[in-house]
Amino acid sequence: VLCPGQGTRDHAPAQAALRDRLLSAVVSCFKRHGAAAIDTPVLELRGRRGGGPFALPQETLMGKYGEDTKLIYELQDQGGELLALRYDLTVPFARYLAMNKVNNMKRYHVAKVYRRDNPATTRGRYREFYQCDFDIAGQFDPMIPDAECLKIVHEILSDLQLGDFVIKVNDRRILNGVFAVCGVPESKFIPACSTVDKLDKMPWEEVRSEMVGEKGLSPEAANRIGEYVQLHGGLDLIERLLQDPKLSQNKLAKEGLGDMKLLFEYLTLFGITGKISFDLSLARGLDYYTGVIFEAVLLQQENEHVEEPVSVGSVAGGGRYDGLVGMFDPKGRKVPCVGVSIGIERIFSILEQRLEASGEKLRTTETQVLVATPQKHLLAARLKLISELWDAGIKAEMLYKKDPKLLKQLQYCEDTGIPLAAIVGEQELADGVVKLRDVATRKEVRM
Amino acid sequence: VLCPGQGTRDHAPAQAALRDRLLSAVVSCFKRHGAAAIDTPVLELRGRRGGGPFALPQETLMGKYGEDTKLIYELQDQGGELLALRYDLTVPFARYLAMNKVNNMKRYHVAKVYRRDNPATTRGRYREFYQCDFDIAGQFDPMIPDAECLKIVHEILSDLQLGDFVIKVNDRRILNGVFAVCGVPESKFIPACSTVDKLDKMPWEEVRSEMVGEKGLSPEAANRIGEYVQLHGGLDLIERLLQDPKLSQNKLAKEGLGDMKLLFEYLTLFGITGKISFDLSLARGLDYYTGVIFEAVLLQQENEHVEEPVSVGSVAGGGRYDGLVGMFDPKGRKVPCVGVSIGIERIFSILEQRLEASGEKLRTTETQVLVATPQKHLLAARLKLISELWDAGIKAEMLYKKDPKLLKQLQYCEDTGIPLAAIVGEQELADGVVKLRDVATRKEVRM
Repeated sequence: VLCPGQGTRDHAPAQAALRDRLLSAVVSCFKRHGAAAIDTPVLELRGRRGGGPFALPQETLMGKYGEDTKLIYELQDQGGELLALRYDLTVPFARYLAMNKVNNMKRYHVAKVYRRDNPATTRGRYREFYQCDFDIAGQFDPMIPDAECLKIVHEILSDLQLGDFVIKVNDRRILNGVFAVCGVPESKFIPACSTVDKLDKMPWEEVRSEMVGEKGLSPEAANRIGEYVQLHGGLDLIERLLQDPKLSQNKLAKEGLGDMKLLFEYLTLFGITGKISFDLSLARGLDYYTGVIFEAVLLQQENEHVEEPVSVGSVAGGGRYDGLVGMFDPKGRKVPCVGVSIGIERIFSILEQRLEASGEKLRTTETQVLVATPQKHLLAARLKLISELWDAGIKAEMLYKKDPKLLKQLQYCEDTGIPLAAIVGEQELADGVVKLRDVATRKEVRM
Repeated sequence: VLCPGQGTRDHAPAQAALRDRLLSAVVSCFKRHGAAAIDTPVLELRGRRGGGPFALPQETLMGKYGEDTKLIYELQDQGGELLALRYDLTVPFARYLAMNKVNNMKRYHVAKVYRRDNPATTRGRYREFYQCDFDIAGQFDPMIPDAECLKIVHEILSDLQLGDFVIKVNDRRILNGVFAVCGVPESKFIPACSTVDKLDKMPWEEVRSEMVGEKGLSPEAANRIGEYVQLHGGLDLIERLLQDPKLSQNKLAKEGLGDMKLLFEYLTLFGITGKISFDLSLARGLDYYTGVIFEAVLLQQENEHVEEPVSVGSVAGGGRYDGLVGMFDPKGRKVPCVGVSIGIERIFSILEQRLEASGEKLRTTETQVLVATPQKHLLAARLKLISELWDAGIKAEMLYKKDPKLLKQLQYCEDTGIPLAAIVGEQELADGVVKLRDVATRKEVRM
């Protein structure tokens, strides 16, 4: 009882320090791009007894998460409101914009979300985990905010030195255009989409048989889809598909390809196309995407003796969702949005494993100086000195012993990485000075 | 649905920025005192079907919160573990120490907790709220860590410039000693304690009648208690009670008073006794305290034309809990602890109201420079320049328009407090320079 549940975990100081460092890097990138912070509650209303201003039919709203709705944690009805734990930060952001009638906003949000998922803790998959989201809401000229989201992913993954990566990009409109020209009825776009999404985990043959078997697509349609979704490339591929006799006739696909071309222009100006791959197999699970979608994956290092770089998992993803805010607005007022979510838990797992392997010890405190005494009966002097240091804003500690041995005090510095010891002995007290000792070099100065 | 439940709230950017500033001040004080961060999950196990290593009887552990157990949010049994939302950060800390067999730790934890309480949002009381805790665990010489906790409260409340305050201090052993010498049976110590705790909200007569009526104390015992618990003072009062013919005969009370004297000695060395009041009416609700307890209250300002300073509510509190870790340890191994919790929500409410009253506008972003163009067809130049700025770590924004008007761009700077505009026009492009404009002074330099 009162111990962490399955798929949750404690963070010991070393882990908390690592996470702090990681989150700081991400947040400082978000701030560099001019984002403001907002916070929304973890407890969300599932419904109100007897209705209320936001008591729309539960299915409509929970439905934003598609098949994942079953993964939402619900609270017991202990008398009062029906509550759930937030599943992500995107839907609450859309709700926030609608409720407050906000038309423009660039915001970040770093907070915990909850999913009744099957935890795979070694791969950084937990039931309680952080999400780090950056979103741009507003009606703007095409692809400028979208390009910035990709730039952000590029900056963060480069900063963190996680090794080589690629950012796969696609567009829901292109995918839907592909389905349409391959003869898939519109009612099957979403199931077809979620099947295509599995192409990074299983070979085309299996994906194809799921399409035909489970999703009820015709074998011919599936074959035609296969010809498209196995394509990936850059500007050249976009140009080729813009000339594709079938695809170029589809309005949605043409729009999507035109915007994709514009996106690549902007990414060229940002100098990051080297890490971008236009990949028609990228589908992303969530229903609410309406335009560009993307996902960053780390590549296995070459020095790991693998012939071809292999993807070792998604570490960031996002896309455009122009319809979500309108679903929360009583008048259906639309606010186009594009955003990115950094997969902080997987990155944390990688950094944690790397730190363990290196044997490096992360400092868990920031203490600059230990106040120490070489003789007995000097507790009062230590308390007076440390109080002065704290009041001067200096990070200081002392041992909570009346008469600790000097050796123990210096040992504590070495164990915890405190660089300096401020020593007051009888002589120093008489002279009105303090001896400052550099713990590593053992050099001492009186001051 | 998916809107904040009762007693929860969104934080708009201005509020999030204020909260960020407030939490930074608190955390930097905790770090100044050498604390490491830990994190424990929000989802806690209430029990495991079929038992398990931590499946002790539910009552035993939930009982740590005393009467407040009914305020714990429980999750629905959706198949799996029985979960609850954490009620505070202290009990999980004790569980962490026991589980990991940690004997010494100075840690802070800033995180959200959840209570099915009656929200009083104007007074900063919410169902989902932050707690900021600092605790020192370990077997040390008496009152040194306890004194540091009080120093921390003093530093934080001074730093935040919240106005005059007083930190009330008492000791559970002294209170229990008082109950004993007044003839209260030991079984009624806890109910008597929780009644005494109401003395800051109601007059003694009402407290007395609750003791006699609801808690079943004899009128004589209640009268005797009244003589003690209405006392408050400093070192003089401690000395007087150490001479009290009845109280000095009680072992617990004598221990408590001896330690209180030592505490005052240390607080004198810290130079903070001016804000400390030894107050026998302070009891604190929680069952787990075993020694010193304290609570900081803000005093009404003198300029508000009130004759005597009146308390306007508790903004920090804590105490010693030497038995809690042992309750989680299979072998009952004890780890003495003392800690403090900063009432960040109430402080936030005060600062928020003060900010509103002042009309001051808090910046919600940290953007240093806006990349702007005075002519059309210069989007590429802006994208190139902003990308260079981002890569150099400079916080930069641009408008997401192909051809924004210069006036609109400068207006954006004024609205959001961006101090500089980096302007690239056709002339600057030709000359290979950028014009840097100080938005406030309108001064420009080419560089």
